[in-house]
Parts: sequence; structure tokens; C-alpha cells
Amino acid sequence: MKAIILVIDGLADRPVKALNYKTPLEASDRNNLNALAKKGITGILDPISPGIRAGSDTSHLAILGYDPFKVYTGRGPFEASGMGIEITGGDVAFRCNFATVDNNLIVKDRRAGRIENTEELEKAITEQVKLEVDYEFKSLKYRAALVLKGKGLSCEVSDIDPHESGVKVKKPEALKKEAEKTAEILWDFSIKAHRVLKEYPINKDRKLPANFLLARGAGITPELRSFKEKYNLNAACIATTAIIKGITKLAGFDIIEAEADYSARISQAIDALNTRDIVLINIKEADEAGHDNKPEEKIRVIEKLDRSMDRLLEFVIENYLVVLPDHSTPCGVGEHTGDTVPVLIAGPEVRSDSVERFDERSTTLGGLGRIRAKHIMPIILDLINKSHKFGA
Amino acid sequence: MKAIILVIDGLADRPVKALNYKTPLEASDRNNLNALAKKGITGILDPISPGIRAGSDTSHLAILGYDPFKVYTGRGPFEASGMGIEITGGDVAFRCNFATVDNNLIVKDRRAGRIENTEELEKAITEQVKLEVDYEFKSLKYRAALVLKGKGLSCEVSDIDPHESGVKVKKPEALKKEAEKTAEILWDFSIKAHRVLKEYPINKDRKLPANFLLARGAGITPELRSFKEKYNLNAACIATTAIIKGITKLAGFDIIEAEADYSARISQAIDALNTRDIVLINIKEADEAGHDNKPEEKIRVIEKLDRSMDRLLEFVIENYLVVLPDHSTPCGVGEHTGDTVPVLIAGPEVRSDSVERFDERSTTLGGLGRIRAKHIMPIILDLINKSHKFGA
Repeated sequence: MKAIILVIDGLADRPVKALNYKTPLEASDRNNLNALAKKGITGILDPISPGIRAGSDTSHLAILGYDPFKVYTGRGPFEASGMGIEITGGDVAFRCNFATVDNNLIVKDRRAGRIENTEELEKAITEQVKLEVDYEFKSLKYRAALVLKGKGLSCEVSDIDPHESGVKVKKPEALKKEAEKTAEILWDFSIKAHRVLKEYPINKDRKLPANFLLARGAGITPELRSFKEKYNLNAACIATTAIIKGITKLAGFDIIEAEADYSARISQAIDALNTRDIVLINIKEADEAGHDNKPEEKIRVIEKLDRSMDRLLEFVIENYLVVLPDHSTPCGVGEHTGDTVPVLIAGPEVRSDSVERFDERSTTLGGLGRIRAKHIMPIILDLINKSHKFGA
Repeated sequence: MKAIILVIDGLADRPVKALNYKTPLEASDRNNLNALAKKGITGILDPISPGIRAGSDTSHLAILGYDPFKVYTGRGPFEASGMGIEITGGDVAFRCNFATVDNNLIVKDRRAGRIENTEELEKAITEQVKLEVDYEFKSLKYRAALVLKGKGLSCEVSDIDPHESGVKVKKPEALKKEAEKTAEILWDFSIKAHRVLKEYPINKDRKLPANFLLARGAGITPELRSFKEKYNLNAACIATTAIIKGITKLAGFDIIEAEADYSARISQAIDALNTRDIVLINIKEADEAGHDNKPEEKIRVIEKLDRSMDRLLEFVIENYLVVLPDHSTPCGVGEHTGDTVPVLIAGPEVRSDSVERFDERSTTLGGLGRIRAKHIMPIILDLINKSHKFGA
């Protein structure tokens, strides 16, 4: 028996006035999701605990059975890993944006006009910037990641990114005494990179030159026990965002380059299970619709995904499927909230309940009751018969 | 967005035979509570954890987000704070009753005939009793609080109060070695106060002279992070009992002197929110009816409160309201029990569920499922958009 975890990022929502107080999920045509809810067992789930607003990073860690309170210090390492940097336990990593600053280091645009091609800039930096520790730097469009390697580093440094334009970049501060060296190295990198970037030819032609790197989300790389070691499972991930790729890569997953089309991704997952035990699929677009306050767009994403799910109905005859959002991103809030999310588990031996619809409210009456993200992996291991008995 | 927490003390109950096996809440006319349940999301809640009998003190601490297992050692400090004594972290405090004892220190009446006027007695004690540490003593009718201040004090001392009449007062014992000094000082206080009281003129005329102070509920004052510091919320409390005032005062709440009339109290709360973010209202009388084994009286209290709640239905159009008892006080038991309590949350963006009645059993099908008192503050912070995201 195999398992698929389908994470519909930011899917869950709150009642929307324009939808006659339905949520986008409730308002959507979702025959396949409802059919799976009808076949399966459902419930509601707290990504962390009631009321706590989870990030995609902390929630995915919890879904995979890692305790975010122990392994999560910041987004940097997961983002860096997802961008393809080989990072190991103890490395300190940051997310960065290519940004535009003026001569006084006032931020003009936090994304340098969403610059598309940063390969040359990345190369110039890695060739010309020398630091007192080893480092790796990679970029993908306007986004980048910086990893500092060596002893005596700490993630307790504040963001350089002021998180708004019109204000000066912030010199990083050591939030704890032991982080002073790291704060100095980070600033050294930023100033040296700035010197390289502002003189770089392609920047001379840009109205919004990519002349500064705004670092944020400092984190120390945790040593995650791999899925193979932790659960004896071969795992793969199909996702489009760096953070999800990064988390699963650190957990020893194979990363499969996602097809654009949702049904193609589901076929990728089913194919991947020929040689693996479990696949996590992350669908990002519902979250983006939530952040953009667009309930109609969220409905569109849900309906598109739902129409792509035909093969999963066949899949669950002999295998297990878990469907859940990693958190709520209500369109009325435009941010993650601490509401519960609906969850369904379908497969040959689940105790199917009376719930016939997959949405935030119908699943409150489901057979799972109210569980937490950290319970998902033990439940899957149990269903696919890979559990160990506690006791005799 | 603002929030009101309406705690209906001891409201929850068990089926009562005389009410045809309904609970007092189920048997009451409660149009407003039901309307709020219909608009809102409901559920059941364990004040501490399933089956545990909570005090009003430990439950309110949990509702406010303080861990009673960490901050609660006894009722003394909260009672002392509520009676107006300025206490600080480390002070050891006791609740006391003015009582009547005979010449052999046998308790004749634990409340000295519920003596009303104890101001003179309080004054005589504070003027004449000298101890080896600083102390403060205050009274309100037959009740009083004693606070010992200084180093090397401990709350690990047994009660002087034998909790029944006809038996001798108990010399306090040190429950741990480090409490020996405190036990001695407490007994020194009690004997010296007894000498002052038994000679005091007004006592000579009383059939039940207030000639002894029965101390109990020793506790060490915790250093609670204030609501402002912990949540960045300005808070106020409207309550009639010292213990609730004391807890909220220690949590940095403004204490508003409660009007007798319930609808006046609700108006006080709404007015207080002009300059504050959150108000806790405690309604005590349902608990008293439970302790007195009076289901009909409990129904009367519920119906009186319900008729006073009109303004709250308007309030929840743009703000959030949480209604819950702090614990069950079943009339058939006459004491707090470990049953769950019903909870409702109403406000503009809650996922309203199909529950249309506010009572112990209807809310078991609510959208919140079964939560705990400690989840209330994270849920409120999330709804009023004062949450911090864990992760990114």
C-alpha cells in the first residue's frame, strides 16, 4: 500500500460575504473532493494548535512529523535547500531579495522590479565577494538564498530587509551575544555584494537596478532524520515552491520537477509510487488567491484541481490518500490565520463517516474529530501498515 | 476589532431529575444566547483537561493564557490582590475567615456569624500585631487576606482552617523543610491576632465573636506577564468577586467596579472597549446557585442574564464575543465538577455552524469540536488579527 499526501496550500477560508457567506471551498463545484469525502473519513485539523497561525514551513514540518518548535528557527535553510544549495546541519541560511536602493541605502523597490534574469549577478557575486567563512549563494529570478558555513555561527540575527520601501536597509543586529560574528559577516556580505551589483553592467540599464540583497529569515539548518531512517519510507515531493522542495529535500525526499498541469502532477505522483512508498504533492495557487484577496480566483483553482483528480478515485481503491490544506489563508484577511482546516483520508480500510462534502464546516462532523498536523504521519503509517506497536 | 469574554461562572450542569433530566441551561428561556449560538461557532471545552475539576482561579488563569500548573500554588495571592493589597512576585499570601473559637480553640463558627463590619478589627490587628517580617492584612466582611513579605518565605504550609466546625484550629505545618519559618510566622500572626481580637470591645457584645482568623490557601505570588506585554492588548475586568479581580489585576487589567444590573455591566464593558481591546465579564450568581443545589435559582439567573444581552447581538456584527462558563457547578453535586462546558464564539468572520442552541449538549456538535480553556486566547488573537505567525 502506498500513500499520497495532497496539500492544497492555503485552501481553507472563512465565510465570504460576496459568496453569500460561503467559503470559496463551499462555493465551488468539487465532485471529486466530495466523492473522496464520502468514501473517506474526514475531520478538522489544527496545523499547530488551536488559534495559532502557521507558516507553510512550520505546517509542512508538522505534517511530515517533525516538531517545528524543535527544528524551525527561520525559513532561510528550507528556502536555500529548495533553491538547490546543499546545506548541512549547523549552516546558517537566509532568504534574500534582489532589491533597488538609492545612494543612502533607502529601499526603492524590494524586488528590483521583479527582475527575471539574475544568473549573471549571482555569478559576479560568488566570484568577487570573499568572506571570512565559506558561503554559498544562489538566485532564482528576484529571489535568492545565502548560506554561511563554518563554526561559531548563529541564526540570532535580525533581518536586513526592512519589509517596506521608502526606509533604509537595516544593519543586522545580533539578537544574542553569540551572534555578533554572524551579524558582522552578513553585513560584510551585503556591503561587498552591493559594491559588485551597483557597478554591474546590466544594472546600469535598469530603471530599478538590482543593487542590494535584502536578507531575512535567518535560520540554522536542522538535522532532520530522513523519511527512510525515521519511517523506513521512500518518499518523493512534487511542488513548485522552493520552501516545500527545501523542507522535503532536507527530509530525504526525491524532488520531482512538477508539471504545470494538475492532472499531470497527479500522474507524476502515481508513477513515482512505483518505486516509492509516499508522495507529497503541494498545490500552491489557492494560497496565492487568498493572499491576493480573490475568492473567485480561489474557486477557480479549486475547481481546476478537482477536475484533475479523477485518477485519485481509482488510486484510493487500494491505496491511501490524505487531502488537507497546510493552513487557512482567508481571502478577507489576505494572510494565514489560525482557523482549523478540513482533512480527508480515503483508502480501502478507513472508517468512512457520514460526511459527504469536503469543506471547512461539513468536516467538523467527521469521524476524525479535531486532530493536529503532527498526527497525520502516525495515521498514515498505521493505515499502510508500517507502524510499530507501542507495547505488546 | 474588539473582544468580550463573558464568563458565566459555574453555569454548566448535569441533567436534573426535577427538570425532566434537562440541565438548568437547557431548561431556561435563552433567546439571546441561542441567537448568538446560531450566529456563531460553538463547541465544548475542558477548563483544564477532561475530567479535571477546575477552580474558578485555575480556569480563569487558563482562559487568559496563563498555565495554572506553572503560576498557581494557591488561591491566597489572587484573593489578596482582589481585596486591594498590592502584592508582588514572591510574596506569600493566604485567604482568611474571621471565625469564632472557644477557649480551647475549638471552632464554633467558621464565619463568626457572617460578621459584616470588620474594619475596626482589621485596624486593631494591623496596629498591634508585629511580626518578624513585613505583612499586609485586609478584610472585607468576614473574609480577609494576609500577605507575608520578605525573603526565605514558602507557600508550602498547611491550612489553619480545619474546614469544619466542632474541631480545633490546626497549627500550620511546614509541608517542606524550607517552609518551617513561614509556618512559624503564620502561627505567630494567628495567636497575636487572636489576643487582639478576643479583647476587642465589639466582640464582647457578639454572640459569635470574630476572635480568630482561619488562614488557608497559601500561595506564592506569580510574576504574570501583563496582557499588554504578553499580547499587546489593553484589558479591563468587570467582576464582583475578589478572586477574579485579583487574577485579572495581576495580569495588568484595569478593574472596573461592576454595576449590580447585568445589562448595565454589559454596557460598562462596551464602553470600556472605547479605550481598550478586550474586556472580561464574570457573572458569579449561576455558580452560587450550583453550590446551593438550586436548579430553579440557576434558571432564574440564566434568564435574567439572557434578557440583559441585547446589546451583545449588535456588538458581534463588528467585534468578537466569547461566552463560556469557567467550569461546571452541577446543582446535584453542589461543587465544581470536571465536565466539559459549552462555548460559543460570535463575530463577523467565524465559521458559523449548525448549532442553534447554547447548552451543554447542543454544542457537542459545534464547529469548534472539543477544545481547552488555554486555546481561547490564541483563537481570540487570531480573530481580532493580533496574532503572530509561527513560521512564514
